[in-house]
Amino acid sequence: MDTLILSGPDIRRLVAHVGLDTLMDTLIERLTQAFEGYDAQTTRIPIRSGFSYDHPASGLVEWMPCLGASPQGSPHVAIKVVGYHPENPARHELPTILSTVSAYDTATGHLLAMMDGTFLTALRTGAASALATEALAVPEADTVGLIGTGAQAVTQLHALTRVRPIRRVLAYDVQPGVLASFPQRIARFGAHLTVETASAEAIVEQADIICTATSIEVGAGPVFGPAVPKPWAHFNAVGSDFPGKTELPADLLRQSFVCPDFRAQAIQEGECQQIDAEQIGPSLYEVLQQPDRYADQRQRLTVFDSTGWALEDHVALHLFLSYAAELGLGTRLPIESIWDDPHAPYALASTPTLATTP
Amino acid sequence: MDTLILSGPDIRRLVAHVGLDTLMDTLIERLTQAFEGYDAQTTRIPIRSGFSYDHPASGLVEWMPCLGASPQGSPHVAIKVVGYHPENPARHELPTILSTVSAYDTATGHLLAMMDGTFLTALRTGAASALATEALAVPEADTVGLIGTGAQAVTQLHALTRVRPIRRVLAYDVQPGVLASFPQRIARFGAHLTVETASAEAIVEQADIICTATSIEVGAGPVFGPAVPKPWAHFNAVGSDFPGKTELPADLLRQSFVCPDFRAQAIQEGECQQIDAEQIGPSLYEVLQQPDRYADQRQRLTVFDSTGWALEDHVALHLFLSYAAELGLGTRLPIESIWDDPHAPYALASTPTLATTP
Repeated sequence: MDTLILSGPDIRRLVAHVGLDTLMDTLIERLTQAFEGYDAQTTRIPIRSGFSYDHPASGLVEWMPCLGASPQGSPHVAIKVVGYHPENPARHELPTILSTVSAYDTATGHLLAMMDGTFLTALRTGAASALATEALAVPEADTVGLIGTGAQAVTQLHALTRVRPIRRVLAYDVQPGVLASFPQRIARFGAHLTVETASAEAIVEQADIICTATSIEVGAGPVFGPAVPKPWAHFNAVGSDFPGKTELPADLLRQSFVCPDFRAQAIQEGECQQIDAEQIGPSLYEVLQQPDRYADQRQRLTVFDSTGWALEDHVALHLFLSYAAELGLGTRLPIESIWDDPHAPYALASTPTLATTP
Repeated sequence: MDTLILSGPDIRRLVAHVGLDTLMDTLIERLTQAFEGYDAQTTRIPIRSGFSYDHPASGLVEWMPCLGASPQGSPHVAIKVVGYHPENPARHELPTILSTVSAYDTATGHLLAMMDGTFLTALRTGAASALATEALAVPEADTVGLIGTGAQAVTQLHALTRVRPIRRVLAYDVQPGVLASFPQRIARFGAHLTVETASAEAIVEQADIICTATSIEVGAGPVFGPAVPKPWAHFNAVGSDFPGKTELPADLLRQSFVCPDFRAQAIQEGECQQIDAEQIGPSLYEVLQQPDRYADQRQRLTVFDSTGWALEDHVALHLFLSYAAELGLGTRLPIESIWDDPHAPYALASTPTLATTP
């Protein structure tokens, strides 16, 4: 009984075949369907948990489980394990976020598939911001501000270009090298975009849509100083994902329609940590389930508090798996020990000789 | 950057090379060291969590994380994901427990290794009972009673033969076929053992050491009726691992020195659910850390409440990995997407062309 493994090279082949735009568009479409159809009675998503530590590096490893229906209708457990190590790029030339995602069959507990979660996380975090932006930003928004231009900013921008007529990009990063290389890193989709560097405050004041995707340290936020955003500005706050780690000023949150991806989690580790319960708006799936009710919010300040929701991983996993099946990608390995007699773990050892029976 | 995968066939080769007795003895030794050295300040083990469901099968998928030191001294995260589906053997000819275990590098979050956890779980559950039996059963104990003779009973018995002079085995299972095949399934190590079938109550009355390893349903325990055990009897209660699922009578627990593997978890899902906090004794690691203090307990009724502790998986994982390294076993796959520039997820797509920069 095999497990399908989709490796980094498989993802590369998959992306080359499907194309980044189609992949992002399809993920946005699937995510939208999943959010619109989300029902807490049938889809179970606990708040994520993890280990954080300061040695040997400052970082954390978290697990994000989800019990939900696969596209074929049978329930699957998806578990993403995600590492966050902000020193990875400088110290190891590795992405800050490294991850894998696994799918388990609820009929037997069998590990059906395991795949890279590093690219998946970047892609689905972008797609989630596209959903929020579509719901909460003005339709004519054409200027995106990026505070933090690392790996996540690439997919944020790409996703936004799929739902809004983006022409102009204002960018800032605390690391000049990471800022300087940004245009090159978006070349695959962003040839028509004007990228300008600006201060974080100028970005907040000039952009229609602002994405914060930083590795700001616990207690060190917000990531910009005093600035007056446009009255209709929409923020996607992507980097706030740990107790004490926040990117936006509490004042801004209090003036805004704040929409978390997953309220219970956002209260613990998102921007919602900074405000009172009654200042928190509906979760994104509620907004998508009642579009008419929330359509007017586009005209005011809005914040998508994106902590990362396991439903997004579940949907992205199944999208990648369906493409992989179509393209015949992946490696199959019999990871679990299966014995001829399911009660006989030692059947795997040498030839049996009968024991004495009375 | 590769991940080492140890598959079922790799485990088979490893066992063939190392030998079951050496493997069990070494695991017992490593587990003893780990329990003796356990320090909650440096090793972090949350209570396990999971999803349980009734469709498409009655079952659960749980995750068991542990942050602890590897044998090389650097901290690793180990996460076991374990499925429990008691209908697996009859419906799918699969083990009740299917599992995989993964190890993550805390320097970067990289998935170092992933391996079968099905054989590992059976082996380490046996080894844990050996530790408890060594600490709490009389040295001359030679009769083992097994209530439930499935996969876990095989490794329970094997482990006990490594720490006590076992000669006689009394066995019972609700499924006659599973009972009848037991002698054959222990042939690899048990040729010198006399296996007799008996009622659960006769087993409790006659055995020095009783292992309960059943798939009793929630609320359906205990697994035996009125019976008076020997005054020095030691119980390894292995099957109690879910809220409401218990194997032993509460009265027996109240008369016994009850030693959980992990108190906080045993209170929620072990035999300890049935008794008051003050009736629960020290956890097994505490007994092993103060052997003189608890040596007298061997003369009385004792119960090891084995819910399954993630430290056991951590230790077993690293033992298998060290053997695998020695024997050159396993498959290496680059599961995580790694990009030439760690900030450039779209570097995996086609040839870049520069975006316009002002």
